[in-house]
Amino acid sequence: MVPRLKTALDGPLLALEQRILDRMPEIEQWLRSQWQEHAVPFYASVDLRNAGFKLAPVDTNLFPGGFNNLNPDSMPLAVQAIQDAVERVCADARGVLLIPENHTRNQSYLQNVATLASILQQAGMRVRVGSLLPDVKAPTKIDLPSGDALTLEPVVRRGRRVGVGDFDPCMVLLNNDLSGGPPAILQNLDQPIAPSLAAGWYNRRKSKHFAAYSRVAREFGELLDIDPWLVDPFFGVCGEINFQERSGEECLASNVAGLLERVKRKYDEYGIAEKPFAIVKADAGTYGMGIMTVRDPDDVIGLNRKQRNKMAVVKEGLQVESVIIQEGVPTFETIDDAIAEPVVYMVDRFVVGGFYRMHPARGKDENLNAPGAQFKSLAFESPCIPDLDGPAGCPPNRFYAYGVVARLAQLAASIEIEALDAAPPPAAVPAAVS
Amino acid sequence: MVPRLKTALDGPLLALEQRILDRMPEIEQWLRSQWQEHAVPFYASVDLRNAGFKLAPVDTNLFPGGFNNLNPDSMPLAVQAIQDAVERVCADARGVLLIPENHTRNQSYLQNVATLASILQQAGMRVRVGSLLPDVKAPTKIDLPSGDALTLEPVVRRGRRVGVGDFDPCMVLLNNDLSGGPPAILQNLDQPIAPSLAAGWYNRRKSKHFAAYSRVAREFGELLDIDPWLVDPFFGVCGEINFQERSGEECLASNVAGLLERVKRKYDEYGIAEKPFAIVKADAGTYGMGIMTVRDPDDVIGLNRKQRNKMAVVKEGLQVESVIIQEGVPTFETIDDAIAEPVVYMVDRFVVGGFYRMHPARGKDENLNAPGAQFKSLAFESPCIPDLDGPAGCPPNRFYAYGVVARLAQLAASIEIEALDAAPPPAAVPAAVS
Repeated sequence: MVPRLKTALDGPLLALEQRILDRMPEIEQWLRSQWQEHAVPFYASVDLRNAGFKLAPVDTNLFPGGFNNLNPDSMPLAVQAIQDAVERVCADARGVLLIPENHTRNQSYLQNVATLASILQQAGMRVRVGSLLPDVKAPTKIDLPSGDALTLEPVVRRGRRVGVGDFDPCMVLLNNDLSGGPPAILQNLDQPIAPSLAAGWYNRRKSKHFAAYSRVAREFGELLDIDPWLVDPFFGVCGEINFQERSGEECLASNVAGLLERVKRKYDEYGIAEKPFAIVKADAGTYGMGIMTVRDPDDVIGLNRKQRNKMAVVKEGLQVESVIIQEGVPTFETIDDAIAEPVVYMVDRFVVGGFYRMHPARGKDENLNAPGAQFKSLAFESPCIPDLDGPAGCPPNRFYAYGVVARLAQLAASIEIEALDAAPPPAAVPAAVS
Repeated sequence: MVPRLKTALDGPLLALEQRILDRMPEIEQWLRSQWQEHAVPFYASVDLRNAGFKLAPVDTNLFPGGFNNLNPDSMPLAVQAIQDAVERVCADARGVLLIPENHTRNQSYLQNVATLASILQQAGMRVRVGSLLPDVKAPTKIDLPSGDALTLEPVVRRGRRVGVGDFDPCMVLLNNDLSGGPPAILQNLDQPIAPSLAAGWYNRRKSKHFAAYSRVAREFGELLDIDPWLVDPFFGVCGEINFQERSGEECLASNVAGLLERVKRKYDEYGIAEKPFAIVKADAGTYGMGIMTVRDPDDVIGLNRKQRNKMAVVKEGLQVESVIIQEGVPTFETIDDAIAEPVVYMVDRFVVGGFYRMHPARGKDENLNAPGAQFKSLAFESPCIPDLDGPAGCPPNRFYAYGVVARLAQLAASIEIEALDAAPPPAAVPAAVS
């Protein structure tokens, strides 16, 4: 069942959804043509925010870590889609080496790895899981709450190939976001790696992603003859930030002021009574770390020690040097009184499922990707199939709109990664440590 | 729910299924490599017979007419797969002209057309249904039992393009088996047609299909190190048959005798206690017409008038001039005491669903594609996903084996159609009449 939305949606989004449904053939054709010009990411997940008056992505993950949160009914679609994805990378594929994050105790994440391995197996691949953890020196079996088990094996390099044990895979599938840099053991391989090493978070910047997204949204706006702001959050960037040393505060404050002003003008244009807010995020941050909600430029001046510590460091202890100031999109959706945001999963060009991320202790203007978040899988009656005769607001139709906006973000990620792939490669680092 | 199989299966098939499950990565890789050499049919359905000791296709339909019999749960898979299929024919596709059989009263068939149109729409296509019936001179709305309606429109030719009304489609999708020949209005078009006109039943011969299938089965047998007979029915051919004039009876009788003898030897080899039988079918027959079960060579000598009439003419009044004598594969499966055979549906390279064809009045050695047949859709818990850890005989695992054998038949059809496409085109005929 689709979780019930607690409140009926108001005008602009319903109009947007209706436009998206009406123009479905043009949208699908346009997306097909885009995927002829750009390399489709192997997989991606996109966090969306549905404000009732706008629907926009707020984060695009190229190493999705929640396959276990998808509804089991979504699995056949994921299996079918991953066949296209694998064929694109390695037509001859029989063996896939899956490289996860360096977690050994995060059961939920490990369940994601097991689910992903199972999807690949069901698509006819041999799959083994190669760990980059120095501690994993021999095959290590980890029991999972589901009753499954996952065996981590040390990644072995032989010349220009990697594998585990005597397993020589056709391709390497990364489910590790490479926050710490591209591991030396994976550099200069003969085997294809998906996503490319350049797509790691050591190299990505949210601001580059959303700049690409804005261009995509503008083109999409022209296609549908709509204001691209309806699907695109405004943003600004401050480089040369040092939270510990309190440098860059002025840039932050003036960017926040300018952004809130721009958003206010849009709210006035559409008669929206909400108070604008901004989300300040580490430009290379993941895991919901290094994020704060800002309602006034003064909020970023004179941060206290705790706030500065929280913002200064992200995953794997990396210093934050640049931040993105993004228009806050309030989430309009609640499930059982908890604020909820949809997360859409894509494999190759296909939307294969999604879930709601909920947080009972967070507000509608706050980041939900935080400890205490819960997940509610979406067993859409028809996972990506709109009911063309139904009203725009009905759940399958809402999900089609979600799938379209998520695919716009996926396209932006593709354009972003193409630019990173074309740039000179960064220096190698030794195998990451956890 | 998967319909329950009434009887447990005995040894050889279980061993075959287990082998198919064990070798899944090799099978999938081999199939992927085959689809790089051969053009995958847009869609296909394959009738299978599961004898308990062998599992074989008995008919391959390139214009499947039972999409309405698939379980609604299969629809998302069909929608996803058809995107690949359309993209292959016409990457820029927005508009598809669907050309159905010339039925206006067969409600079940029309429901199939409506289902197929809906799958295409949900994949983002504009779809209109073009009729070749001379009676359809204006858009004609037909109400369906489901509450849906289907609008047939007259096909209009403009230069080297066809359409309906002001609709200029990117591609033509045939759901008409062209038993009467390739309609002049569809010849020499600039638009791509799928399947190709050469794949029509005016041009196909079951014997060519099964000759191609035997080669595929032999290669598959080598891959799995199994006797290809386990998935391949023996067959012979008699050309120059004229049932009305009683010519060709000797060829038929000697072929039947030879075939039954070959099958008997196989039965002895595997210790199978069944009595061999043969199915005699019009080599170009469809719709289950022109089919008889033969248990002895004498059965085909001195046929009475009724039997001769039944065999002499197939769909659209065509004379039978050639027959295939195929090893009968008894069906082992029953549902509610009715003999049942699985029908597997494929779109592009993907198995998207299936159903059981059942006939309460027919025996296990008879054709079930006859008036009175019923259909039971298969809502496989995991439509094409084997449970690799489960026993070979459990239903989802059985369906994986069904899907593999069905795809072998689809591959054989591809090879068969490539040969027909390469042959000189047959003469055009005017638009078919019903």
